[in-house]
Amino acid sequence: MLKQWESLSEGSTLNLDEFISNLVFNADGLIPAIAQQHDSKEVLMMAWMNEKSLRETLATQQVCYWSRSRQTYWRKGESSGHRQLLKSMRADCDGDALLLLVDQEGPACHTNRRDCFYYDVNEQGVTVVSSEDAGLA
Amino acid sequence: MLKQWESLSEGSTLNLDEFISNLVFNADGLIPAIAQQHDSKEVLMMAWMNEKSLRETLATQQVCYWSRSRQTYWRKGESSGHRQLLKSMRADCDGDALLLLVDQEGPACHTNRRDCFYYDVNEQGVTVVSSEDAGLA
Repeated sequence: MLKQWESLSEGSTLNLDEFISNLVFNADGLIPAIAQQHDSKEVLMMAWMNEKSLRETLATQQVCYWSRSRQTYWRKGESSGHRQLLKSMRADCDGDALLLLVDQEGPACHTNRRDCFYYDVNEQGVTVVSSEDAGLA
Repeated sequence: MLKQWESLSEGSTLNLDEFISNLVFNADGLIPAIAQQHDSKEVLMMAWMNEKSLRETLATQQVCYWSRSRQTYWRKGESSGHRQLLKSMRADCDGDALLLLVDQEGPACHTNRRDCFYYDVNEQGVTVVSSEDAGLA
């Protein structure tokens, strides 16, 4: 937990290893990571990282997640070419979520949509707000 | 899982109850919810919802999370006054994350910062990027 650091003022610095050891990984060793396009500020997707993928992402500046469905490292774009270049990584106040500011090459979503959040949900029903090839337009 | 709907084109509609029954709630019955300021597109925070808080949020247009630490409903702003008015709710391609477009009253973070993502993480170390009263400026 990061409680001890929450009153630090802007510009204060902390040791990376100590900080990471205070992040909250779940029972599977994972932390959620939100990817946001750094300039347009679109939220592109949410996926998961373990400590090793987090450190690889910082080292390579190419976003690497942990795939829960495939149970392996998921270097975004390795097969699709739709890579995410890390511009900066943020952690939240209680250390249980990451925000990745990225430069997304092509669509972020496996459906070829630009982002994954294409279902609009409201009390009247759910509406699909972009089509499968929207990211290729 | 929402796989069966991913090739639907823009404007297609789905039944809300059927859609919710296909969302992926974790073993604790929770789904992550990202709150984004609807106009500036800042990512404010990430928290969790269960089905009941999701439905309450849609019904009231005031964001209600499930607090994992307090194990109770967390009607954002109920004590602080820093409420989140829901502008729209989105779900992602595989139905395991929500994006809430909100109008945030005051700071979103319990530290009074505008947003919770105030630790910048990189290989050289971690830097605090806003001070505790930044949201009140």
